[in-house]
Amino acid sequence: MRTEILSIGDELLYGHVTDTNAAWLGRQLLALGLPASHFQTVGDEMPDIVAAFRLALSRADLILATGGLGPTEDDLTMEALAQTAGVPLTHREEVLDQMAARFKRSKSELNPGNRKQALVPEGAAVLRNDWGTAPGVHFTTRDGKHVFLMPGVPREMEGLFRTWIAPYLRECASAGKRCVLVKHFHSFGLPESTAGERLKDLMRAGLNPDVGTRVAGGVVSVRVVAHGESPEAAQRLLDPVAARVREALGEQLFGEDDVTLPEAAARALLDRSLTVAFAESCTAGLVAAMLARVPGVSASLREGVVVYSNEAKTRYAGVRPETLAAHGAVSPETARELAEGIRERAGTDLAVSVTGLAGPDGGTPEKPVGLVFFAVATPRGTQVEERRFLGLDRNTVRERAAHTALDLLRRAVLGCPKT
Amino acid sequence: MRTEILSIGDELLYGHVTDTNAAWLGRQLLALGLPASHFQTVGDEMPDIVAAFRLALSRADLILATGGLGPTEDDLTMEALAQTAGVPLTHREEVLDQMAARFKRSKSELNPGNRKQALVPEGAAVLRNDWGTAPGVHFTTRDGKHVFLMPGVPREMEGLFRTWIAPYLRECASAGKRCVLVKHFHSFGLPESTAGERLKDLMRAGLNPDVGTRVAGGVVSVRVVAHGESPEAAQRLLDPVAARVREALGEQLFGEDDVTLPEAAARALLDRSLTVAFAESCTAGLVAAMLARVPGVSASLREGVVVYSNEAKTRYAGVRPETLAAHGAVSPETARELAEGIRERAGTDLAVSVTGLAGPDGGTPEKPVGLVFFAVATPRGTQVEERRFLGLDRNTVRERAAHTALDLLRRAVLGCPKT
Repeated sequence: MRTEILSIGDELLYGHVTDTNAAWLGRQLLALGLPASHFQTVGDEMPDIVAAFRLALSRADLILATGGLGPTEDDLTMEALAQTAGVPLTHREEVLDQMAARFKRSKSELNPGNRKQALVPEGAAVLRNDWGTAPGVHFTTRDGKHVFLMPGVPREMEGLFRTWIAPYLRECASAGKRCVLVKHFHSFGLPESTAGERLKDLMRAGLNPDVGTRVAGGVVSVRVVAHGESPEAAQRLLDPVAARVREALGEQLFGEDDVTLPEAAARALLDRSLTVAFAESCTAGLVAAMLARVPGVSASLREGVVVYSNEAKTRYAGVRPETLAAHGAVSPETARELAEGIRERAGTDLAVSVTGLAGPDGGTPEKPVGLVFFAVATPRGTQVEERRFLGLDRNTVRERAAHTALDLLRRAVLGCPKT
Repeated sequence: MRTEILSIGDELLYGHVTDTNAAWLGRQLLALGLPASHFQTVGDEMPDIVAAFRLALSRADLILATGGLGPTEDDLTMEALAQTAGVPLTHREEVLDQMAARFKRSKSELNPGNRKQALVPEGAAVLRNDWGTAPGVHFTTRDGKHVFLMPGVPREMEGLFRTWIAPYLRECASAGKRCVLVKHFHSFGLPESTAGERLKDLMRAGLNPDVGTRVAGGVVSVRVVAHGESPEAAQRLLDPVAARVREALGEQLFGEDDVTLPEAAARALLDRSLTVAFAESCTAGLVAAMLARVPGVSASLREGVVVYSNEAKTRYAGVRPETLAAHGAVSPETARELAEGIRERAGTDLAVSVTGLAGPDGGTPEKPVGLVFFAVATPRGTQVEERRFLGLDRNTVRERAAHTALDLLRRAVLGCPKT
């Protein structure tokens, strides 16, 4: 079964929105053993959308389309699909009922644009949208090809896909008896070239499993894709390669598959019932906010302080004014006092501090933009670290610093005895 | 002149890499007055790449292609273009010389894969790559269409485009005497359907300027694209429509073009030399971290506290234990005491608090997941607001709450007299 992804919207062609939907759907299709053979992107012009549907239907059996289902004049996807398939649009009262119920809860009102969203190609199954107003659609063509329409808002698209489309595709995939297993391994602190060198023999073209690396935000990830006649056959190919990858990444490996760095740190804390507090200067709350992404982390994450001003560093974490005067706010001494001070005041098992120069101004030859100090205070003492994220812009420095803080926290926790 | 962008690589179809290149090139083409009418993405299969070139050449005059120029077996773009155009590949010694010089500087050695990179379709102009090894190519077809090939690494692609391709396209654009002006208007707090309703007559298909809306993270943006014979002609078309859009978005309009919500809030504070502090529960530092994205904001952003636990709410912001016992942590009363308490302690002009239920657990019928209270404490008193972000996941609730806090802050500041 050949699959194709179609993204609709002027904002994509204009580059005002980067198409994360197509990549997300591409990963889902691959994981289901139905990798996409083409992506297409077209704007909000009826003839272009119709031509794109025709082209996709000429070469694929299953089309996932996103965008153009909103309430405004330039949302034309439903009509374009109806035109392509040669069927009329029909009004579906259940769509309007769902929207009305949704609007009632949030105390807003339906307007004429929303009424348009209840017009669906005749014969299509409506996919209820529990994450927004635009309904999804599953349309089957006369020659048995399948078209799924989803809204372009990523959260709504993901909700619809997971709830209504993935279960259907799982059946298609098992009927086709192809099996693709994909595993991801995520590391922090290892250069991509080092990972690539260690895995060189596995990364040659044409091998099964196929091994590749990528890097984003300082996280180096390795992907392993194994094709087999059955899940068991694919698994047998994947296992020894997975073991090699784990060995190559060593203690820099923080998680597999969907595990993020905040999740790895949170899991380490929660598993050991340890609590943590933060004192953040240049990251300004980003470390705490990243950790707080993880559901249930409130059992470990007690509190944090954003200490941009020197006065706040003293008031919240007891950093001595003499330390600030002698060494400056961006120094190992200040990092240490921040972490130890907040740990004592918060009464937590651990505390992490971050103080650095995110720029763009304020750098000197001795303390350039990108210089960041970290401290992790634990019951067994305090570890102070220095990193230089040179040549990066302000918010890349801040993001890299936040990731480093979470990784230092994770490693410190893994050094703690289980309680 | 019709333009098209072609992205080549299995990693794109697998979704392991999000195609930021196409979006970046889309923005460049639009700014040059040559907006792309299609994007295509294909994998590393020769017949698919050839078919994609053929399709693009059938409907566009200029094609920008990225990816598949590397040294490995699955890099087939040069050969595919040669096949499409019906010309042989020829060895270009200058490419090898450049690579050799580059490798000498970085003390590495040419390998057989690199030799392959010196094979270029006959008749093509080579575009020197000063940012990596793979050369770019400018190929002109027999019927006068233009194909540019660039590597997929974003930094190399951008370098080649800026140095070699943009100057050429600027000439095409001025020869074609087309001029495109683009403006963006960003609002918060207005439903997209309401904005669409107010701008309905401007959003009909086929109008110049072209008006479209999009929504992300609760921010509703309107884009206006005007085409004219000259910059002045385009501006004359754009101005009255821009005025209509500003009127339609009203006080919910927070910024134009590249201005983000954090920037709008920061700009309002900095312009008036006002200081701010935050007390965040469910957002856990996200509001402060978003504001800290703005360079120079430290003059206004003094400090913040992440008060996940009740104890921290009392210790840092002086929330009375009786208030927490009587009304709960998620209540207008707690929001008010948080904001007033942190404002007093931090000694800032303003303070903003956020307390809510991000979920997934902890909701009740009276206080469902998604319920968030905000308070903005100012010299003129405290404003308390309630919002219900229902049916959203934990991190969407947190993001929406952070945006709401920044927008409430911005509005409160705009109500302050200039100092």
